[in-house]
Amino acid sequence: MEVYFDNSATTRCCRAAAEKMMDLMTIDYGNPSSMHRKGVEAERHIREAKEILASLLKVNEKELVFTSGGTESNNLAIIGTALANRRAGTHIITTAIEHPSVTNVMKHLEEEGFAVTYLPVSRTGIVSLEALKEAMTKETILVSVMMVNNEIGSLQPLEQISAVVKGVNPGCIFHVDAVQGFGKFRIFPKRMGIDLLSVSGHKIHGPKGVGLLYINEKVKIWPVLFGGGQQRNLRSGTENVPGIAGLAAAAKAGYENFEEKREALYSLRKRFVERIRRLDGVTVNGPSDREGAPHIVSVSFRDVRSEVLLHTLEERGIYVSSGSACASNKPGISETLKSIGVEKQLLDATIRFSFSFENTAEEVDYCLGVLTEVLPVLRKYLPH
Amino acid sequence: MEVYFDNSATTRCCRAAAEKMMDLMTIDYGNPSSMHRKGVEAERHIREAKEILASLLKVNEKELVFTSGGTESNNLAIIGTALANRRAGTHIITTAIEHPSVTNVMKHLEEEGFAVTYLPVSRTGIVSLEALKEAMTKETILVSVMMVNNEIGSLQPLEQISAVVKGVNPGCIFHVDAVQGFGKFRIFPKRMGIDLLSVSGHKIHGPKGVGLLYINEKVKIWPVLFGGGQQRNLRSGTENVPGIAGLAAAAKAGYENFEEKREALYSLRKRFVERIRRLDGVTVNGPSDREGAPHIVSVSFRDVRSEVLLHTLEERGIYVSSGSACASNKPGISETLKSIGVEKQLLDATIRFSFSFENTAEEVDYCLGVLTEVLPVLRKYLPH
Repeated sequence: MEVYFDNSATTRCCRAAAEKMMDLMTIDYGNPSSMHRKGVEAERHIREAKEILASLLKVNEKELVFTSGGTESNNLAIIGTALANRRAGTHIITTAIEHPSVTNVMKHLEEEGFAVTYLPVSRTGIVSLEALKEAMTKETILVSVMMVNNEIGSLQPLEQISAVVKGVNPGCIFHVDAVQGFGKFRIFPKRMGIDLLSVSGHKIHGPKGVGLLYINEKVKIWPVLFGGGQQRNLRSGTENVPGIAGLAAAAKAGYENFEEKREALYSLRKRFVERIRRLDGVTVNGPSDREGAPHIVSVSFRDVRSEVLLHTLEERGIYVSSGSACASNKPGISETLKSIGVEKQLLDATIRFSFSFENTAEEVDYCLGVLTEVLPVLRKYLPH
Repeated sequence: MEVYFDNSATTRCCRAAAEKMMDLMTIDYGNPSSMHRKGVEAERHIREAKEILASLLKVNEKELVFTSGGTESNNLAIIGTALANRRAGTHIITTAIEHPSVTNVMKHLEEEGFAVTYLPVSRTGIVSLEALKEAMTKETILVSVMMVNNEIGSLQPLEQISAVVKGVNPGCIFHVDAVQGFGKFRIFPKRMGIDLLSVSGHKIHGPKGVGLLYINEKVKIWPVLFGGGQQRNLRSGTENVPGIAGLAAAAKAGYENFEEKREALYSLRKRFVERIRRLDGVTVNGPSDREGAPHIVSVSFRDVRSEVLLHTLEERGIYVSSGSACASNKPGISETLKSIGVEKQLLDATIRFSFSFENTAEEVDYCLGVLTEVLPVLRKYLPH
């Protein structure tokens, strides 16, 4: 049996997206900047993708910019607004549990003279609104908070965060990295007070190499890549038409029968958590049940090294992640797990199970069966 | 008949690339950073792509970085080396006929305090080695010259340029935008004295949304996007595995029976140029015959507006470009055409025909037949 429980690392590209892309690579392959019919057709495919995404997010089509992925979306959002709004202030606020494509952009901006505050989070990975309020100043130009944490699935109270931010400084820009949230929750940036929203294609059964950034029309932002002036000069370079159409097709498919699918995902998660808790020496980290995202479970296994467990599960066809897969070949120690107060000896004993709509109860049961079998064996051979 | 003569804008993605991508999207869809088998498989596909490309370029695999396209490759090459080498000097040299993804990066760097010299070119679009020698100083940290011009097909003497650059300042970095040259010429950066080389997927019958940057291992370069530290920290973000494999598959296919295919392309170009010269009021711009690239012909049509001719040809199923298609919806006036001294009244009367290995003599003849028929008609209705 093959069980892919690493859907927060990447997902299988769905048929709807892959087939659309095949057409746009081999038949309607024009360059949207070309003035002839093939260019016009290519542009129409981009427009259709924008219509789909704008309608899902309830935003204006011209507020959408396509990028090469979540990382570029986060870079453009943060660097682009920091540099464009530097005169208004040089203070930025983020959290201690962001993805490296936010954290490392912040470190870069610190070298460029910006001051960055990293907000602590609770034991379930939630930002303290009081800490945020205290950190906010009139000099704060940008607040960047991820929607769903990629390691533990905690879900931030975005509307409340926005209210605090805008309450102190109405001109402050609020960016949300929704790479793990889009496709799992309905997101309406305008209603939720979000100015910038990052989305990635390959986390929602769409293609790798494409992402989206929603930019509220009132936000002043500079490009980070320069060239032919495509996408209203915000993102130069020939548009990745197949990727863009694939992202939209995947988003559309993902939000079909959405509530039903999400219910199924929550049930799956609940089944998994309830059963894994029955095992010895197991701690489920982060939010419980419906407090967080429906697709991520972080579990610490006392006296088991995560890497060993990962490979043991792999031998049985179960694919999971130790910590986050997003940082390249650098297992390191998870800042997120430290931030939520996971015991030191469990930091290196933690596995992320991440589900998708394609997973089944049978797979969950198979995984639990394997865990029940292998955990005592692994612990037996552990040097004490 | 449908005749696609806009291959310098973009090309049809070849079967080899598209099918490989389909597999990597829907079957081997892992994240290369994942530690389990699906991640290892994905990494293997990247390694295979690198082997193909490194072998074609005769460089080391670890000198290759994948990007989201030619624009990002040029941005990373130029911004990355300029910022990393700022202490050695702040002078950069480029030419007057570069692609916007070079020119507009230069303009950005000028705002950041760098001084940029734009070298003039000859009537056939060739950089003067004397002008280069004169412009070079000990403060010059970077010289960026495109291999093949995208509008007129001129081919720069890269080895001689490198010799001049390294002669004056051995530490100066030499970047070549080879987006229009790769796949049309054999390029061996090490032998040719090239330190950085930009390549784009969709110009060589590969996918959109992926590019390559060769970076000589001795070159000091900073990233422009920050995140999970993928690709030795030079280009963060989950690798676009299908795009990368598609780029390599297209490059491999393109260089099969290469000399034969290029001969065919030169013959096609010659046939086209010889016949179009027989028409009244026609000027072929740029290099003649084998002086330049085999796939680009720039033609000015006296008393005809390029946009009108473009749409007239489109009605007959022939797709061409007015100037370059790479600058989004901004026809403007071509700096390249101005730089090579095209008469003022012909600037807006110029069409680029760009061929690929897939085009045929029959298509050339059809296009010439249509031109012979429509040019007198268009001129008849032109307001004088």
